[in-house]
Parts: sequence; structure tokens; C-alpha cells
Amino acid sequence: MAVRAAVAGASGYAGGELLRLLLAHPDVEIGALTGNSNAGQHLGTLQPHLLPLADRVLQPTTADVLAGHDVVFLALPHGQSAAVAEQLGPDVLVVDMGADFRLRDAADWEAFYGSEHAGTWPYGLPELPGARAELSGSKRIAVPGCYPTAVSLALAPAYAAGLVEDEAVIVAATGTSGAGKALKPHLLGSEVMGSMSPYGVGGGHRHTPEMIQNLSAAAGRRVSVSFTPTLAPMARGILATCSAKAAPGATAESVRAAYEKAYADEPFVRLLPEGQWPATASVYGSNAVQLQVAYDASAGRVIVISAIDNLTKGTAGGAVQSMNIALGLDEATGLSSIGVAP
Amino acid sequence: MAVRAAVAGASGYAGGELLRLLLAHPDVEIGALTGNSNAGQHLGTLQPHLLPLADRVLQPTTADVLAGHDVVFLALPHGQSAAVAEQLGPDVLVVDMGADFRLRDAADWEAFYGSEHAGTWPYGLPELPGARAELSGSKRIAVPGCYPTAVSLALAPAYAAGLVEDEAVIVAATGTSGAGKALKPHLLGSEVMGSMSPYGVGGGHRHTPEMIQNLSAAAGRRVSVSFTPTLAPMARGILATCSAKAAPGATAESVRAAYEKAYADEPFVRLLPEGQWPATASVYGSNAVQLQVAYDASAGRVIVISAIDNLTKGTAGGAVQSMNIALGLDEATGLSSIGVAP
Amino acid sequence: MAVRAAVAGASGYAGGELLRLLLAHPDVEIGALTGNSNAGQHLGTLQPHLLPLADRVLQPTTADVLAGHDVVFLALPHGQSAAVAEQLGPDVLVVDMGADFRLRDAADWEAFYGSEHAGTWPYGLPELPGARAELSGSKRIAVPGCYPTAVSLALAPAYAAGLVEDEAVIVAATGTSGAGKALKPHLLGSEVMGSMSPYGVGGGHRHTPEMIQNLSAAAGRRVSVSFTPTLAPMARGILATCSAKAAPGATAESVRAAYEKAYADEPFVRLLPEGQWPATASVYGSNAVQLQVAYDASAGRVIVISAIDNLTKGTAGGAVQSMNIALGLDEATGLSSIGVAP
Amino acid sequence: MAVRAAVAGASGYAGGELLRLLLAHPDVEIGALTGNSNAGQHLGTLQPHLLPLADRVLQPTTADVLAGHDVVFLALPHGQSAAVAEQLGPDVLVVDMGADFRLRDAADWEAFYGSEHAGTWPYGLPELPGARAELSGSKRIAVPGCYPTAVSLALAPAYAAGLVEDEAVIVAATGTSGAGKALKPHLLGSEVMGSMSPYGVGGGHRHTPEMIQNLSAAAGRRVSVSFTPTLAPMARGILATCSAKAAPGATAESVRAAYEKAYADEPFVRLLPEGQWPATASVYGSNAVQLQVAYDASAGRVIVISAIDNLTKGTAGGAVQSMNIALGLDEATGLSSIGVAP
Repeated sequence: MAVRAAVAGASGYAGGELLRLLLAHPDVEIGALTGNSNAGQHLGTLQPHLLPLADRVLQPTTADVLAGHDVVFLALPHGQSAAVAEQLGPDVLVVDMGADFRLRDAADWEAFYGSEHAGTWPYGLPELPGARAELSGSKRIAVPGCYPTAVSLALAPAYAAGLVEDEAVIVAATGTSGAGKALKPHLLGSEVMGSMSPYGVGGGHRHTPEMIQNLSAAAGRRVSVSFTPTLAPMARGILATCSAKAAPGATAESVRAAYEKAYADEPFVRLLPEGQWPATASVYGSNAVQLQVAYDASAGRVIVISAIDNLTKGTAGGAVQSMNIALGLDEATGLSSIGVAP
Repeated sequence: MAVRAAVAGASGYAGGELLRLLLAHPDVEIGALTGNSNAGQHLGTLQPHLLPLADRVLQPTTADVLAGHDVVFLALPHGQSAAVAEQLGPDVLVVDMGADFRLRDAADWEAFYGSEHAGTWPYGLPELPGARAELSGSKRIAVPGCYPTAVSLALAPAYAAGLVEDEAVIVAATGTSGAGKALKPHLLGSEVMGSMSPYGVGGGHRHTPEMIQNLSAAAGRRVSVSFTPTLAPMARGILATCSAKAAPGATAESVRAAYEKAYADEPFVRLLPEGQWPATASVYGSNAVQLQVAYDASAGRVIVISAIDNLTKGTAGGAVQSMNIALGLDEATGLSSIGVAP
Repeated sequence: MAVRAAVAGASGYAGGELLRLLLAHPDVEIGALTGNSNAGQHLGTLQPHLLPLADRVLQPTTADVLAGHDVVFLALPHGQSAAVAEQLGPDVLVVDMGADFRLRDAADWEAFYGSEHAGTWPYGLPELPGARAELSGSKRIAVPGCYPTAVSLALAPAYAAGLVEDEAVIVAATGTSGAGKALKPHLLGSEVMGSMSPYGVGGGHRHTPEMIQNLSAAAGRRVSVSFTPTLAPMARGILATCSAKAAPGATAESVRAAYEKAYADEPFVRLLPEGQWPATASVYGSNAVQLQVAYDASAGRVIVISAIDNLTKGTAGGAVQSMNIALGLDEATGLSSIGVAP
Repeated sequence: MAVRAAVAGASGYAGGELLRLLLAHPDVEIGALTGNSNAGQHLGTLQPHLLPLADRVLQPTTADVLAGHDVVFLALPHGQSAAVAEQLGPDVLVVDMGADFRLRDAADWEAFYGSEHAGTWPYGLPELPGARAELSGSKRIAVPGCYPTAVSLALAPAYAAGLVEDEAVIVAATGTSGAGKALKPHLLGSEVMGSMSPYGVGGGHRHTPEMIQNLSAAAGRRVSVSFTPTLAPMARGILATCSAKAAPGATAESVRAAYEKAYADEPFVRLLPEGQWPATASVYGSNAVQLQVAYDASAGRVIVISAIDNLTKGTAGGAVQSMNIALGLDEATGLSSIGVAP
């Protein structure tokens, strides 16, 4: 089977990571590559690490250019996917790596993004209950945000098993690639290296409603989320420190058992042995999720820490994993659970 | 006035930072420098950044060597200060940069450090209520831990003003110098660069009882603390993200007002203007604390984020500041609130 | 074809990188993994990024353990390979990732390593003239040093084409993984981050005679080398800045033409388009070599700059590439020319 | 004595570092701060590490605003200083931190900067022979480039003593702050971290003629320079690896002796003890220069390696040091030779 794939937005970090993975995918043939402001440029100057594609030239993001592919990946700024997707036929698999189709609640969308809600597509986080059934055979996929991927996989089992109550308190550190290639002063290397700083504090980050959506689904009730993202001096990786008040009766053993059960058969999620903690370096460039759980008896809280690569499992790897499911391929095709370390 | 100061443990990171500050202190004359395994070596090979002391030779840490100074700083591994301090007379100002004399509760000490409690000395965090009075004229000072410095200054005003309730949830990122110069595999540059990872999760970190002690004093009741430290890919700095459930009636305005009042006259603590967030780079090498507060109405939590340099305000700067108070000098002598950035 | 491979020294950085590559190699089955001081430990605690091997237990490095494999990789400290290799039969392919069998001149070995020379094996840098013929079918391979890989590929074509004369002047920056997992103070993250420093200056680095050997072979005369290695604040990568006095008649065009010709058919070496310069990030985790050349008319020098990943092309990738040739497999099997960036 | 100083270009890295130093200068009072595109903004948002100046507002860079000061520092883009300097009276000390007045040869200026040469001012590298006499009492100072500072101090003594011949070959690594706050893709943290890359290879860097000027003055003849700058994953620091062919008769001893003599009385230049090598971390934030020399008998070259902080000794520290001389103050006033490490 040869799946012909186009990538709209091939010059950014998400597009580049996707191409890195697609080049290693045995069933995919890379078709059109587009980028608006960079159309006409060689990919070799924009993504010098993708040697096999160095001589490819970016085309403009138009329906004509994207036509004739089995899969179209959209790695576009938020709010731009709907217009492009509309022009692609219903038989094309469209994988949106932006936020446009992740949220179910139009009011949430409007509150956080300030525009009209475009709709809701099957959600590309296969490890959540029911997700694989929805993705299988689907022609539309909304790839989750990087933070919601790390946080939902960390906390959903605890909420689903009734082991925690009240709001989730999440502090996550991300590598700078999570902020994209935008030319902003605070993303300059001189500013970033040697510095940790928060942003979007107090509920303002756009990934918050997506976390609430996922954790509420797991809990079967509305879950509040206090989410503080921080920018760390590294290019890749998310370390999410997640906690919630322990429910009465929860124990260290019951917490661990819930996670062992939840992820026993997952190819990409690993609950680490007791005593070992996740590190973003261990999942660098891989589709793996490393998790560890703790029960703090003194503070009465369950703590779950997850590490992912924001560009791989958090974006492009999640997209390929979901594409594989939608196309009926083995879910792990072209993906690796092995990090590039040290 | 010429204060003659000895430093026991001059070869480590805390000792080196202390010497950097003492070299810039107009009233201090640097006397004996000691180090056990490094005795006999030139400081220039151990601390190559301290050019003016490059030709000084480390002596062994003995009572004889430390005698004849006005101030003796102890930058020793935990548990070693008491034996040295005993041999120094009651008229010498002894500043312990280790943990030995920080805790008031002997049971806490024994639970977290596993040895007999040596006692409790005046606590060197001048910004806490009552601390300056205790430090003034004192001949013994227990310098706070780096994390408790960042966390106590972040949360004490909220607990003191009754604006928060329940446990504090704290996730802090530290630079690797916080772990000292110990030769451990996970502290190698190859492991650390590009990686975030937690440690001491679930209540096990030794700084937890110190935070509980400070926040409980502020609250007037026992406060629980859930503390998760993480190791960040930078040499210096602590970013502490601290939150607690908002008390009924707390508002964004009342929270901000409490912090403005608490730190209005503090030379080293700065509540940033609204919209600006702390970054560890801004306090690099300085004794400053940068703070920002937020009220998350949706999650019902007060969030306070502080940034310090773990080696300066978090260790050696705090030690000098407290020494200044004890000696009746201007508190800011020899200290700077200016970071080395970018 | 299923090649059964053992790895002696599986707990170090070279061993870990080799396993990462072998896991992706379609024709290799991973057999015994050994490590002396770490024997008995799970690989998951030593190499947490190698998820599929997490439950494997390290065995001691003995002839018995290593017996029964088609290929044995030796990732051992210098000087230890010969004793192990002797115990393996002549029909086993032994790939030495250490220095023991790289040098042809016993006097060079003795001068730089201070022990008796063990011998010379076919040299695993396939891009050098004649190397593939020597490697094909060989049962012994000496994998080149990381610096000699970067430097020889950078300068050999210029010396071979007679475009340069006199000594080569080389300044190279390496990531810290090049120094291995040894617990040395100057390799601590706190020391390394934010710092550049040289070492082995003035001809003392053990990779110097290997460079001289390769460049002299290319030039057809004894070439002197001035080599200064520097340690850079990154985990991986070598950037080698190499130059030599231009020979009379050399021009920018003739230099470029020589490199285009030399590497026209090489799968892993890329001469970048004019105006684009190598960056170690572009070859992160890949077996690629990125090169650029310049002719400085004013100073009369030819400058060639190469970027490799010291652990991949510079060690484990080079080992796998040479193994493929020795076994008659396609040379690129299991190897990628795509970097993990950003 | 209270010297009133204005800073034109206070929002950039050079301007920020200058303000950090001036705040610690006992004889300087900080007057007007200007910045064109940032005029009207608070310095606290642009330079959050300069707490004492947080509430100062940037003014536009006009003659009126800059009038009435004893010293005016110009931290402006190349080519903009001349127009501003003309409007300042001859009695004002003008310190240009840009390139405009560094070169003596108008043709060099035009070749490398493409505009008309503005003139030549006394050169602010006091450690060069004759520089102090020229600076003393001067009303105009051209602050050297950061690379020429590191390179000239490294090689001038060897050329002056006739210990080397032929061209100098220099490879230097710089921290990203050397490239300023310009919003360019290759300066983003995601691109910079974990990567080394060269730029301006082959003689094109604008600092090359300045190095040639200084080394030629030392040698008493025209010296060629092959200069390759590289960008390193750190915010600050320059490590310059400089070498040249040893002259007949040069020995390790004669080389070392020449440097000991050249810098015996220099407050900021330190020739390290034999066996110790410079590291940029050791001079972080300081005005110090650390040097080490080697004689490579095998390659027949003299190698000198220097480490400076590009923003301090390489820019703002050099500016303050020269200002002190011009004003008749002690040269080291307000400057430190102590690095901020680790």
C-alpha cells in the first residue's frame, strides 16, 4: 500500500517533524509540500536536517496543489485549517495538527480563540477510551495539543478510577519548539538559555479547555484545571507535573494498579518501574510517553508526572499514529518508542 | 569596620558563590578558606572564576584554622556543621549555610535527615515577619534552603492574609548547581542538557518540612505542602510555581494588594507589574526575588510564581544579607539586585 | 538474514547509541549485552531511552557470554578490546569501537596510549579511498575516532587533489557525550552549560595521530596536524573547522569541484549548496556528514567545515555502516541521513 | 566626582550590559536612556534584570535628549554613530560601542561596511601598546569589537616578540548575545540550543580587518588573518583559539615568557598557570581575560587561547575601562575580574 501524503505548512517545526517521521514510514510517499510565505524556497534551506528532501521546492497552499493525495496534513496556524479542509473532498483523509477541530464546546472555542467554531473532528489521542473506535476509518482527525497529550495521559486514569477529586493542578515545562518558529524576542536563544519562565498563567492558556474536556470525560463530571505552562531552556520535550487531591480510600497501591491496568497494552505509554522518574531526554524524538505516579500521604495528593516529546508524540507522532489507525495500518508503523539520548 | 571572615567549604558551589560576594563586600576581609578533601590545593584550580583568590591555598577545616575570625561561614554537607560550630566561641558570628539548624521540630529533622537534631538558630530569611529582630545582633544564623526561600517568599503573604486555604501545591525547577558538585551520573552535562526531570516526588524532599514550618507560621495553623522539585537544563536559578485554593472572598485585587503591602519596603523583593512574569535569567547572580501573582477564577486558585538565583538569594546572598543584619551593617551592603542577563 | 549481535559495554554512551541503531536495523537481532561494573542491572535504569530493551539484564563481559553471535561490538575503554577480541573466533565479525586497532604505526600508539600496540584492523571509514574494499568480507573492523571521522572527511579530498599544502589547522567543538559517562568534575552540567573550553591543546589529543594517518594517506606525504579540541555546551555533535594553506593555482571553483567529485555518490556525505553552512543540529542523531568549503583569497587558505553527530556517524553509525559492508548488506541499512531537529 | 552618563541604545544587549556596569560604578550617575523603536517604553519590560532602572522610560535618540551629560555612550547599529556624535559638543566624552570609528583605513571600512568612512577615534583596548596614552584625556573613544578584543590580546604579544610568522588562523566561538537582539530565525532558542555552526567564513566577517589592524601594528608588518567565527549554544562568552606558525627559535619557554611579560601588570588579563585552560564560564559577567599558551612542536605552531565575556570585556566593560582612563579615574573602577560561575 502506498499512501500519498501532502503537508501544508512544511516549513514550520510541526511540519518538519512530520516529514521526518513520514520519511521513515514504509507505506507513505511524500507528495506536495506547501508553505505560504516560503513558497518557492528549497526545503533544504528551511529544514536542513531533512536531507532526502533538500531539493524539494515549497508550493503555495492551494486546493489545486493539495489535490490528488490520499492524506493531507495541515500544519497551519490556528484558524486556518477549516478553509483549507473545506476544499478537500470527503474521501481524503485530512489530519489537522492545529487546534481548530479539537474542542467539542463552541463556547470554549470562542472564549479562547475569539473566532467562530469550525466544528469537532475525531480526536487523535488513541490511548483515551473510545478514541481508537472513533479514529478507525475516519476521514478527519484533530490532532491534540502537546500539553493536553501529556496531561490527559497523566491524569485520565486517576479520574476514571475515582482515585482523585477536586481540581487538577498542573505545572508543565516545555521546550521552546512548542512556541514555533515565530520571531519573538522572548524566544531568542540569548533569552531562553539559562532561563525558566512561566506564561499564560491563571487559566489563560488555550490548551486548558482541551484538558478540561479530556479529564471531564474521564471523570464523568466537570473537572477544573489549574494549568501553568513554563518555558524551559531546551528545544524539545514536555515534563508535566500533575496532581489532584486523593479521593478517600486511595492508596499508593491502588493508584499504581490503576495505571498499570490503563496502560498495560499501550505500545507507546510506559509506566516506569517504581523509583525511576521520567526525563524528557529519554523520549527525545520518540513517540513514547514515560509516566510515574506517587501518592503523597502527607499532603493527601496523587501526583503523576509524564514526559513526552512535544513535537513527536505531542504533535507529529500523534498525527501519524492516528493516521495509521484511520487507514487500518498497524498503529505503530513508522513510529519509534526509542529516544535519542543522551 | 573590617570584618574578618573565614569560609569552611570553599571549594563547593555555595562556598564559591559566597566568596564571589564577599570579594565585593566593602567591610569584609577574607581570611581562612578551608576544604577537607581539597586541602592543599590552590583555589584557582577549584574556582577559576575567583581571580583575586587564585593563589590562595585551601586549609583543612579545623578549629585552629577557623579561629581568630569575626565571622565563620559553614558551607559544609548536612550534618557536619554542629561539630564545627561547637568549637567556635560564642562571640564569633557563625553562619551555617547547611540545613542543620533550620528546623524547629526535632522530629522533623530526624524524619528527614536521620540523625539527632543539633538545635535551632535564628532563621536567615529577613523578609519573613519577625526575622530581622531575631537576626539583629545574633551570633548564630541558619541560612534557609534555596527552595524554601523561593517558596516562602511566594506564599507567606497569601497565607498570612488569609487569602488561601488548604494545602500548598508547589512545583519548582532548579538549576543544577542546586545539587552541588557531587559526581553523580544524572548530573553530568550530557544527561542534564536538553532534559527536565523530577526528583524527590511525593513529599520526600528535605526542604518540605522547612516550607511547612514557614507557611504554617504565616498562616497561624499547620499548612500541608505538596512539593515537587524538578531539575532544569541550566546552571542556576529557581522558578517556583506555587498555588493554593483561594479562600472565599479572595479576589485578584485583594491578592495583589496583599503582596504590594508585604513587600513595599523590601530592597530585594520585587512584585512585577501586572502582565510581566518572573524569569530566572533576570535574577542571575543577583540577590533579587522577582514575584508575580494571579487569581485563577475558573480553577479557584491563587498562583504565585517566584524566581531567584539559588546560589545567591537562595544561599550565599541570603547568608550575606543576614550577616549584615547581625552585624548592624546596612542590609544590602555588598549585594546587588541586578541580574547578569542575557 | 538474521544477524545476531552482542554488545560489550552496553551501559555507556557509545553502547547505548549502538543499541538505538541496532533496534532499528531490520537484519539484526540483539543478543547478549554486557557491562562490567553494571553487570546485573536492568538496561532500563542505565539507558532509559531504550524502551524495548528496558527489561534486559546486563551480563559480565566474558568470552562465554559473547560466544554464539555473528557480530560482537566492543564499546570498551581503550586498551581492553584486544584481550576480548582474542577470545572470539576468527569467524565472528568483531567491531571495535575503541582506539586499539586504528593506528598503523606502533610507535604512534605507544607514544599516545602508553601501552603495547595490539595491531591494525581494516579501518571503518568507508568514504575514504580503498576503505570499502578492505571492509568487504572482513571479520575485524576498527571504527574510527569521532574527531578523525569529521576531520578526515573534511580535508582528505583537498589533500588528495593537491589543493592544499603545509600543515592542517583544526579547531573542533564537541558535545559532552564525546567524553563519555565518566564522573569527572569538568563534565558536570553546572560546569558545562554556558561554557566553552579547550583541552588536549598543543598536539596532545590521542586522535591527532589518526588524523595524520588519514590525511597523509590522502596527500601521499606526511601531513602535520595542529588539532585543538574544545568542549561545547551541548550533548552531541562535532563541528570541525579545518584549514590549510592553499596550493598555488587553487581557486574557489577548483576546491568546490574537488569536493563535489569526491562525494558525488556518497549516501551520507552532503556538500551543502553554496551559502549554506553546516550545523550540528542538522545531523543530530543521524549518520549524515554535512560539509561546506571556502577559499579565503585574502589569507590564502582553504577552509572546510564539517558537522557530524559524534555518537552516530562518529561512533555507532560508522560502526553499523562498516558492519553492513563487511556482511554484504546494503551499506545504509538501518541508518538514517535525517537529523532530529530542532 | 559625579560623572553624568547618557546611553543611546539602552534597549539592546550592549546597552543593557553597559547599564549593569554603570549602576555599580561609584562615580557615575545614569542620565538619559534612549532607544528609537522602543522610545516611550519602561526599561523594566525591556531589561527586566536591571531592577533599579525598571521605572525609567526610554526617550528618543536626539541631540536634545543627549545634551547636558559628561559622557554619552552610543550603543547603536553600525553606521549610525557618526551622525549622533557630530551633534554632541567637543567637550563631551563620546564612547562609540559600534564599529564606526575603529578602523584606520578608509578602504577597509568601505570594503566591509559599504558606506563612507566616518573617521578614526582612539581605540579602547588599553592593554595594547600605546593605547592608554591615546585614551588618556581623550573626548572620543572607539570601543573594539568583541572578537578583535579576544584575538588581539591573544596574539599581539607573540607577533610583537617575533615568535610567530605567516598568517594567523583563528577559530572563535561566541555566545548568541554577540549577534544582538535581532529577530532572525537562526537566533531562535530552538535553533541555537544543542547546535554549533559557523558563519562569515572565508574572510567575510567585519571584525577581520580590525584584527589585521591590531596584529599588524604588533608585528610591524602586514599580517594576514584567517578568521572563522562560530555560534555556540550559550548566551555569553567568546573562546578564541588562535595560532600561527612558530618562528625559528621559538620555544615553549620563550612563548610563555613573552606572555608573562606582556601581561604582568594588567589588572584584567590573566595568563593561567600551566596546565589550566580558559573557560568562558570563568569570565562570565566579568571584565577579565583568561589566556593560555602552547607550543606545538610537532606541528610547529604557537597556539594561544583566550576567553572573555563578549558583552563585558568584549563590549561594555571595555567601554567603561576606557572611559575611566579618559576621565583620569582608576582604570578598574566599577569593574570586576570575578566571573559569575558556575
